[in-house]
Formats: sequence, structure tokens, C-alpha cells
Amino acid sequence: MRELDRAEALGLLATVSLGRIVFTRHALPAVRPVNHFVDGEDIIVRIHEGGALGSLASPAEAPGVVVAYEADVIDPDTHLGWSVVVTGYARPVADADDADRYADLLRPWVGPPTTGALRIRPDLVTGFRLEAEASRPAPRA
Amino acid sequence: MRELDRAEALGLLATVSLGRIVFTRHALPAVRPVNHFVDGEDIIVRIHEGGALGSLASPAEAPGVVVAYEADVIDPDTHLGWSVVVTGYARPVADADDADRYADLLRPWVGPPTTGALRIRPDLVTGFRLEAEASRPAPRA
Repeated sequence: MRELDRAEALGLLATVSLGRIVFTRHALPAVRPVNHFVDGEDIIVRIHEGGALGSLASPAEAPGVVVAYEADVIDPDTHLGWSVVVTGYARPVADADDADRYADLLRPWVGPPTTGALRIRPDLVTGFRLEAEASRPAPRA
Repeated sequence: MRELDRAEALGLLATVSLGRIVFTRHALPAVRPVNHFVDGEDIIVRIHEGGALGSLASPAEAPGVVVAYEADVIDPDTHLGWSVVVTGYARPVADADDADRYADLLRPWVGPPTTGALRIRPDLVTGFRLEAEASRPAPRA
């Protein structure tokens, strides 16, 4: 198992479009799969009014709330692959131009239309990659 | 988008072996991909000493801690698929026979050997499935 540095981890996160946002809701741990993309170092995820993530976008939360964001590509049989976890403050995207641009980039899912986006600014970035072990040298006779 | 009932959700969870456990660590939201299987209604996940999940198995946590557990199979392009989230108390598997049986069933990953298992007893079980929309009837002339 090899730990990833920040740049590697964010680079891998940018290669996929699906992850899971982890937050606290009603004092309980909560998690939802969402669409994302990486803008610079920020992770942008879509939200819609009334969804579980809606509370994260309320004006009352304007200073931001700490969330974790996880994405992985792991083979269920071999366990080879990678996982990245980002922890940081999530804040609603307030700038109208940014919000419009992100709405175009975050393809809507079936269901309620996207009504906003959340920007996660990575503080802690961790990750690992599981690679097939290199063949070991034969033991000495 | 269709909501899943408890039996459907746990049934889907049992069809995969990889999910993400969500918990609180150092007062921050934390998430790790892990191997699981479903035993009755319980979700069993592997842990190893010294890992991030080790704290969940400490005697101090014997009454159990509330965690969330998520698994999904979602097509990144079409977004079709399903996601299940279970919330409940996680407790170390204390029974030695159970622990041995689970160690055999939870195939070890590359890295530190499995040294224990955690049992998550589902309290809240939620999930959804996104299916291709049925073709709509043609509008009346």
C-alpha cells in the first residue's frame, strides 16, 4: 500500500466524476453519492434544494461546514486501485458566473434539477494506492 | 428516482463487497473504503490495529458508536444504478467463533493483516435506485 501525496491524490480525484460527500446531519454521520469535478484544487459538487445536502448550502452555514469527500476506484476482487479522502470546509458557490459555469459542467441526475453547487476547499488530502506487488527476488540458496 | 425499502436496500448491499464506512475521528467527519459482507441484517467490516478504524474497536467504545455505511453501483455517465446508506451502532465482534468465521470471509487486503471485525447493526436503512425512464406515451394529437 502506497500513500499518495496531495498532488497525486487531487490528480486522481479529477479522473473520476463520482464520489461521496460525508457530513453531519441531525448529529448523525451522513453520506451521499454525488457528481463532482475538480476546479484548481477545489472540489465542486452539485446540490439541489430540499436534498440532504441542502442544509449545507443554507445562509446559516455561510462560514462553511467541515465535510469529507471520498472517491475511489478499487477492484472488488483484487483490491487493487486507489482511494482519496479530502477534508475541508464546504461553502455554497455564491458567485453567479461561477454558479452558472458549474451548473453546465455538473450534468444533472435524474430527479430534482440542480439548483446550486458546493465548493469544498481541501485542507487535509490523503489517499492510498494498492498496486500489484512486484515479483519478489528468489530467496538465496 | 425510486426509494428502496429496507429489504431491497440490504439485499443490494449484499450483492457487493466494497463500501465506505463513515465515522467521526478527532471531531471531524471521516470515511474509509472497506470490505464488507451482510450477515442476516448486520454489516460486518474488517478492521486492523492501528488503522483509522481501530479507535472504533477500542474497549472505551464498547457501547458502540454510530456510523454510516454506504455502498453504491452507479454508472458515472448515465447515473443509473443504486446507492444504499445504513446508519447504526458499530461494535467490535467480541465472540471468538464469530470473529474467526468473519476473518475467513473478509479477504485480507494488501497491507496490515486483519485483526478484527466490526458489526454494524442497521437502525436507519435508506437507498435509491435510478432507472432508465420508461418511454413516455406519445402526446395526444
